[in-house]
Amino acid sequence: MIHSIEESPLCPIANPRSIAIFGASNRPDSMGSNHLFALLDHGFEGPIYPVHPTETQVMGLRAYQSVRDIPEIPNLALIVLPTHIVPEVMKECGETGIRHAIIVSGGFREVGGEGIKLEQRLKDIALRYGIRFLGPNCIGVSNPYHKLNTTFFEFDGLPGFIGLASQSGSFVTQMFRHLAGYGLGFSTAISVGNEADTDIIDAMTYLGACSHTKVVALYVEAINRGQAFLETARAIVPQKPIVAFYSGGSEAGRRASFSHTGAMAGSDRIYDGVFRQCGVIRASSITELFDFCWVLGSQPEPKGHRVVIQTHSGGPGGAAADACDRLGLELPSLSGKTIEKLAPIMPHTGSITNPVDMTFHKDLDHYFHVLPKLLIEERRADMLLIYLLLPIQVVKQTLSRMGLSEEQVLDEADKLIDAQCKSVAQVAKAGGKPLVGYTFRDMNARLIRGLRDRGIPVFPEPQRAARALKALVDYARTREKFVSGHA
Amino acid sequence: MIHSIEESPLCPIANPRSIAIFGASNRPDSMGSNHLFALLDHGFEGPIYPVHPTETQVMGLRAYQSVRDIPEIPNLALIVLPTHIVPEVMKECGETGIRHAIIVSGGFREVGGEGIKLEQRLKDIALRYGIRFLGPNCIGVSNPYHKLNTTFFEFDGLPGFIGLASQSGSFVTQMFRHLAGYGLGFSTAISVGNEADTDIIDAMTYLGACSHTKVVALYVEAINRGQAFLETARAIVPQKPIVAFYSGGSEAGRRASFSHTGAMAGSDRIYDGVFRQCGVIRASSITELFDFCWVLGSQPEPKGHRVVIQTHSGGPGGAAADACDRLGLELPSLSGKTIEKLAPIMPHTGSITNPVDMTFHKDLDHYFHVLPKLLIEERRADMLLIYLLLPIQVVKQTLSRMGLSEEQVLDEADKLIDAQCKSVAQVAKAGGKPLVGYTFRDMNARLIRGLRDRGIPVFPEPQRAARALKALVDYARTREKFVSGHA
Repeated sequence: MIHSIEESPLCPIANPRSIAIFGASNRPDSMGSNHLFALLDHGFEGPIYPVHPTETQVMGLRAYQSVRDIPEIPNLALIVLPTHIVPEVMKECGETGIRHAIIVSGGFREVGGEGIKLEQRLKDIALRYGIRFLGPNCIGVSNPYHKLNTTFFEFDGLPGFIGLASQSGSFVTQMFRHLAGYGLGFSTAISVGNEADTDIIDAMTYLGACSHTKVVALYVEAINRGQAFLETARAIVPQKPIVAFYSGGSEAGRRASFSHTGAMAGSDRIYDGVFRQCGVIRASSITELFDFCWVLGSQPEPKGHRVVIQTHSGGPGGAAADACDRLGLELPSLSGKTIEKLAPIMPHTGSITNPVDMTFHKDLDHYFHVLPKLLIEERRADMLLIYLLLPIQVVKQTLSRMGLSEEQVLDEADKLIDAQCKSVAQVAKAGGKPLVGYTFRDMNARLIRGLRDRGIPVFPEPQRAARALKALVDYARTREKFVSGHA
Repeated sequence: MIHSIEESPLCPIANPRSIAIFGASNRPDSMGSNHLFALLDHGFEGPIYPVHPTETQVMGLRAYQSVRDIPEIPNLALIVLPTHIVPEVMKECGETGIRHAIIVSGGFREVGGEGIKLEQRLKDIALRYGIRFLGPNCIGVSNPYHKLNTTFFEFDGLPGFIGLASQSGSFVTQMFRHLAGYGLGFSTAISVGNEADTDIIDAMTYLGACSHTKVVALYVEAINRGQAFLETARAIVPQKPIVAFYSGGSEAGRRASFSHTGAMAGSDRIYDGVFRQCGVIRASSITELFDFCWVLGSQPEPKGHRVVIQTHSGGPGGAAADACDRLGLELPSLSGKTIEKLAPIMPHTGSITNPVDMTFHKDLDHYFHVLPKLLIEERRADMLLIYLLLPIQVVKQTLSRMGLSEEQVLDEADKLIDAQCKSVAQVAKAGGKPLVGYTFRDMNARLIRGLRDRGIPVFPEPQRAARALKALVDYARTREKFVSGHA
C-alpha cells in the first residue's frame, strides 16, 4: 500500500515527461511504427525521440542514430525491437541514464529455452543500472489522463474510472471501444507481460493510489507473489473495490497461460481462497469484470441485499426475478404504505408483487418518476432494478398523428426522452440507493445513453444486471468486515 | 407431432388470409391502434377490417360497426378491447362464422377473482362455436414470411430460421432488433399468453412442422401438460433442435410467473428432468437461448467435443480455453502432421499448443486462410473457435502511408476485409465442421457482418461462443441417442 502514485516505480512509466522509442521507422508495417503512430495519435504532449540506425526522420520527428545522441535523458524507453538486440539496447539506455522502460518485444521466457536466458540478461542489466521496467512481452500503458498510449492500437476510448492491471495486452486495447460502448473508460490500464521486473501486484498498488481510479480491475493468468498479493489487496479493498477475472483455473486455461507469459497458474480453488481472503470480487469473464466495475464505480453502497424490480412486461420481469433469486438476492414484498400509494397509478392488469409490473402505462411520468420514486423510498428495498423500454416508435407515431411535422416529432421525442432520463437520475440521487436498469433494445438508444451519461448503468439483459448488483452487495459486506476488523 | 402446419389449429392464426381487428381507432394512443399500425406497417397483404362502433374509417381503412357488416367471413379476429366486453365480441365472431382469434386483452386468469370466471366464459364461447384462439393476455404472432405482425410493436427485424413459442410477448417484440443485430430473425414467433385454448405445446408442434424453422426456441414460465410436452418434444428433436429458457425455477421466478400469466411453475430440478428426458437443450437467459439457436441453426453437426482455438493474442486465447474446459469441451493437442505444416507460417513468438497462438501476423492470408484450413483439417479437431480481430485501423494507416488517397484506402480496406470473410467461409464449408468466432470489437464491423452474412456466428465474448458450441455437442449426442433408439 502506498499513499501516492509517486511512490510507485510505475509512476514515471505511466506518466513519462519524455519518451525514447526503439523500433519505429518509416516502414508502416512494422510493429514499432504502429506503437509510435498510436502514441502520436493520442496527442502525447512531451518530446518523443525515435532511435533508428539509419533514418534521420521518423514520421516527421527527428530521429537519433543512438540513444546517446538524444539531447536530454528521456524519462522512458519504449522498446519494440527484435528479441536478440533488446538486452544490448537496455544496456545503452542504462549507460545514458534512462531509468524506466517498457519492453514490448516478445520471445523471452514465454518461448522457453534461449528465451529464458535472454530474460535473465534483461533483469541483470536492469539491476545493474537501476532500471525499472514493464514487460517484456507487454504493450505497456494507456493513461488517457496523461494522453499516453504506448500500445500499437489507436486509442478509441474515453477516460474513465476503471484502473486495469492485466496479464494480457489485448484486454487493454480491445477494451477501449468495449468500455466506450457503455460510456466507460480506463483511468489507467497497465499490461504487465512477463513481469520480469514489475508485476501485476505493482500495477495494482499503483492503481490503488491513483486518484482517477475508483475501481481496480485485474485480468489474472497467474499470481507469482501470493503473500504480497494478499497484503496489497487487503490494504486497498477498504478504500476501493478490486475485481478479478482469473482464466488459469481450468487445465486448458493453465496450459494457455503458460505458453502466453510462461506463468504457472493454480487451481480454481486456490484462487477462490486467495480472492476471498483479501476481499477481491471474482468475475467469470472479461465482460463481467467490467460490468462489476461499472456498478461498483457508479453506485452507492447498498444497505442490504433486497432488490425491488420494476417492469411493465411480465417476461422481462420474471427473468429478472429468477436471475436475482438464483444469486441469493432477496425480493421483498412491498410494505402496506407503498402498496397504498401505488394503487392510484396501477392499471387493473398490473401486479404489485415484486416484480412490480405496470403492464401498460400511458403516462410516462408514472413509469419514469412516480413508480421508481415510490419503490426507491420503500423501506424494504435496498436496490432498484428497472426494466427499460420506451417505445419511442409508438411515441413518435402518436406525435406524428397529432399533426406535428417530422422535425417537430423528432425534437419533441428527444425532449421527452431526455426528461425521463433526468427524472430517473433525480429519483436515484434523492433515493441514495443503487439503481440499475436493463433493456433488450439498442444500447445506443437515446434513453439508454441518457441514463448512462447520468450515472445509471443499463445492461443488455437482466442476468448481467443481477450479477453486478450481487457484486455490489458482496463488496459492501466485505468492506464492512474489513473496516470493522472482522476479516 | 404433425407433418404439415395445415394440421395445426394455429395455422390460420399464423397465416390468415384476412383479419378483423377490434379495438383500433383513430386515437393514436390506444393499444388497438398500435396493433393496427404495426400490422399495416409490416405490409400484411390480405384485407384488414377494423370494427368500430362509431368510426367509419380507421387509419384509412373502411371500418365496420359490427363484425356482421364485414362483406366476408374474416379468417382471424384480432381482439384488443377492454376485458369485460371481450366475451360478447367473441360470441359475435362465433355467430358470424369466424373460427380463429388472437385475444390480446389482459385482465383474465392472471389477475385472479372475476378474471378467472371471465376466462372460463371465453373458453365456453369458443367451444360452442368451434373457435380456436391464442391468448388472452398475449400479443399474437409475428410471421415475417407471411408479412404478419399482430403485435403493437413495429417489426424492425429480419425473417430468419428461429421459431419461437413464448409465454412472454416482450420476448417476441423485444427480440426483433436483438436478433437482427446478429443477422438473425424469426421464422415465426408465437406469444401464447394465458393459454386458455392453444398453448406452448401447440405452438411448439406448429414450429416443428414449419419449413422455415430450423430451430425451435421456447420461453417457458410453466408447462401445464407435462406428458404432451414430453411426447411432442421427443418427436421433434430428431428432426430439429429445441432450446428452452425456463425462468420459473427459482421461488421469485415462480411468483413472477404466477402474476404474469397465472401459471404454476415447478422447481428447477423437475424441469431439468423433463428437458433432459425429451432432449430439449436448456439455456440460462434469453440471450443464451438465441445464441444456441444461432449456432444450432447454422452449423453442421460436430463428430465429437474437441475444440481447437485459433488466436493471435494470448489473453483472448486463454480466456477461450478456460471457458471451453469449464464446459467439458476437450482441447486436443495438434497432431504431428499439422504441427509440421504449421511450422513455416508460425512466428518464433507463436505457440502451437491449443490455443494455437500466432501472436503476430503480417500476412492476413496466414490468419484467415492457411491457419484455419490446417486446423479444420486437423483430424483431432471436431470444431474450430477463432478469435477475430482485423486491426483495420492499422491496415488503413499502412495503405494510407503507402500513398493511396482516402477513397482508395477505404475501398482497398473493404475489399481486403471481404476477401478474408470469403476465405474463412470457404474454409468452413470445405471443412464440414462447426466454425465459430468471437471478438471484443464492434459487432457491426465489416469483418463481423461479413462473416455473419456468410453463416459464421461471431460472439462478443469467448464464454458465449463456448457455451453455444457445447449446446451443439449436446444436441448431436441427444439426436444420436434418439435416432438410435437408446433414449
